[in-house]
Amino acid sequence: MSVNQWIAQRTERFDSSGIRRMFALAAKVKDPINLSIGQPDFPVPAAVKQALIQAIEKDHNGYTPTEGIPALRQKIQSAVDKQFGHSDRRVIITSGTSGGLVLALMGCVNPGDEVIFFDPYFVMYPAIVELAGGRAVKINTYPDFRIDTDRLEAAITPRTKMILLNSPGNPTGVCYSAEEVRAVAEIAKRRDICLVSDEIYSQFSFDGPHHSPATYNDQTIVIDGFSKSHAMTGLRVGLMHGPAALMEVMAKLQQFTFVCAPAPVQWACLTACDLPPVDEMIKLKQKRDWLLQELGNDYEIANPGGAFYLFPKLPWGDGQSFIEAAVQEQLLVIPGNIFSDHDTHFRISYAVDERTLERGAAALKKLARTAVGV
Amino acid sequence: MSVNQWIAQRTERFDSSGIRRMFALAAKVKDPINLSIGQPDFPVPAAVKQALIQAIEKDHNGYTPTEGIPALRQKIQSAVDKQFGHSDRRVIITSGTSGGLVLALMGCVNPGDEVIFFDPYFVMYPAIVELAGGRAVKINTYPDFRIDTDRLEAAITPRTKMILLNSPGNPTGVCYSAEEVRAVAEIAKRRDICLVSDEIYSQFSFDGPHHSPATYNDQTIVIDGFSKSHAMTGLRVGLMHGPAALMEVMAKLQQFTFVCAPAPVQWACLTACDLPPVDEMIKLKQKRDWLLQELGNDYEIANPGGAFYLFPKLPWGDGQSFIEAAVQEQLLVIPGNIFSDHDTHFRISYAVDERTLERGAAALKKLARTAVGV
Repeated sequence: MSVNQWIAQRTERFDSSGIRRMFALAAKVKDPINLSIGQPDFPVPAAVKQALIQAIEKDHNGYTPTEGIPALRQKIQSAVDKQFGHSDRRVIITSGTSGGLVLALMGCVNPGDEVIFFDPYFVMYPAIVELAGGRAVKINTYPDFRIDTDRLEAAITPRTKMILLNSPGNPTGVCYSAEEVRAVAEIAKRRDICLVSDEIYSQFSFDGPHHSPATYNDQTIVIDGFSKSHAMTGLRVGLMHGPAALMEVMAKLQQFTFVCAPAPVQWACLTACDLPPVDEMIKLKQKRDWLLQELGNDYEIANPGGAFYLFPKLPWGDGQSFIEAAVQEQLLVIPGNIFSDHDTHFRISYAVDERTLERGAAALKKLARTAVGV
Repeated sequence: MSVNQWIAQRTERFDSSGIRRMFALAAKVKDPINLSIGQPDFPVPAAVKQALIQAIEKDHNGYTPTEGIPALRQKIQSAVDKQFGHSDRRVIITSGTSGGLVLALMGCVNPGDEVIFFDPYFVMYPAIVELAGGRAVKINTYPDFRIDTDRLEAAITPRTKMILLNSPGNPTGVCYSAEEVRAVAEIAKRRDICLVSDEIYSQFSFDGPHHSPATYNDQTIVIDGFSKSHAMTGLRVGLMHGPAALMEVMAKLQQFTFVCAPAPVQWACLTACDLPPVDEMIKLKQKRDWLLQELGNDYEIANPGGAFYLFPKLPWGDGQSFIEAAVQEQLLVIPGNIFSDHDTHFRISYAVDERTLERGAAALKKLARTAVGV
């Protein structure tokens, strides 16, 4: 008999074939204009690298407590206490923000529970809902990617266990206003729904302060990290905070799965906590502004307030045909249906160097004006 | 309403209270004789540290392919191909060996499937079986911790999906013979059961070569890593290999959960692959021999062939009373019921310095002869 019989059903309910197809296409492109990457193009800040190297030399390379080294946990706990003033809010360190998301879903969602999130969504959400045996309930936010609270209220059923919020958002770059965030926070509170706020791009809100729903709902689980703001995506440390009873469950789950976040990186995060935003963060805003101006005549782009993404409407055709035409121009972008039930948009990352950005803008303008496939 | 209503049922089926109680006890002991730790006491080899530091300086700090950096994957693939000669065997790099275990369970076990493992067992097994919705079927191996194939055959039902094997074993230190491993491998093959072999202690087989069931069953999933042999427990890189179709599922699961193992550590593992066993490994065998001689008159200790554990029978009382008496002697060991349905033994780690080992032996002899609680 074949080993295929052993594959668990949960793994058949999501696939990575779209992403793999992208990688396969990308591998064929020489000197690509790569606007497809979901991580900053700048290096880890020198001070953080130095702290990481020191931790390794000092032999901080063994297991840590599952909830993180006390120094880091306490430092972040102080900042969180100061920001929110919740008596019951507790911080734990996780194996990346994705690790935090997995803990939140596995820790709170029973088979059959419904989890609401907004479409377009971070590519991992449907998969981790399936892993927990939950049912994904997607709320359409096209064309402006803003939250319609009537739609949210209408989607809630007695089986609704969780709302997953992501602002600034991947792939849209949309930053929710204080009013939007507050409305969701209050609905979750009133309807007794667990609210999980994925704030990994919290440092990338370019047109005003970042708003967390935890400000308005003290039972919110917040997931954040250093990956994006300090270019530490491959170093796999994140954090989460929320009601102490829930964080205790998350810590227990982590003890028996990820065990702990990489030890020396936790020490380096102590240094990262104290750093001001790097210059590259300021440049990102300028890059966004420049790109919006360049593409404004040829593309519809709704509300790209932060993260480092634009999510323009396709000028013609579907995602597959547009991406294939882009590859002919050496340009790599990601089709919107990776992040959505719709196939009408595509994602650009502008966390790239100036030359790549300029080449990308030129290729995109050419593409919009060459109505291939229409 | 309370946030407790949001906690998923799966998390209630296992607990870490025994471990937490241990930590709480341990925190109160001054100048402890700590024989409770599941990791080597030696530092990461200097060459591995140096490679890790170089990778950080070279900015290998971003995401890697989920299955690992090609150089490391290919290097291990070559070694695995040479060892087993299976045409269909594929290697992926995981977020620690525990990450590999989670992938194997989530990737293969459906709700209601039965997973067989041997009691005493690694503390994580019951929890990850529960996480996948499976049912743990434990096979008693007391008093000698060897495999009785009749018992194994009798435990197999139409719902049996997986057998989890661990040799050298935690907590017993038992290394299965070629005959035992072969028998399990052949039963799994004949009965069409997925065999997962946790070989994290493969380098710690002191009385003969380590035997992998993959030698006898080409569909075996093998989980291994560098954590224990190179003292890299807190650096969170492991590996797994098995039939290509299964490894593809594991890679997909990892893409949507752990994302990738820490990037610079993967580069350092390239160096670790080329290192001969460190001197400390040889010393471990000597420490085991010395400790067995010291304790042989006072404790029954069955077959401690490897890892770096002894699992002696309690000389009197139950685990809790013995551990409490041990703490009075400043000694930290782990009660057997953390690893077992039985409460008749306790675990000692001898991966400690000579002075700690000598103090430990003295305290253990005193304890055995002071029949407190009998």
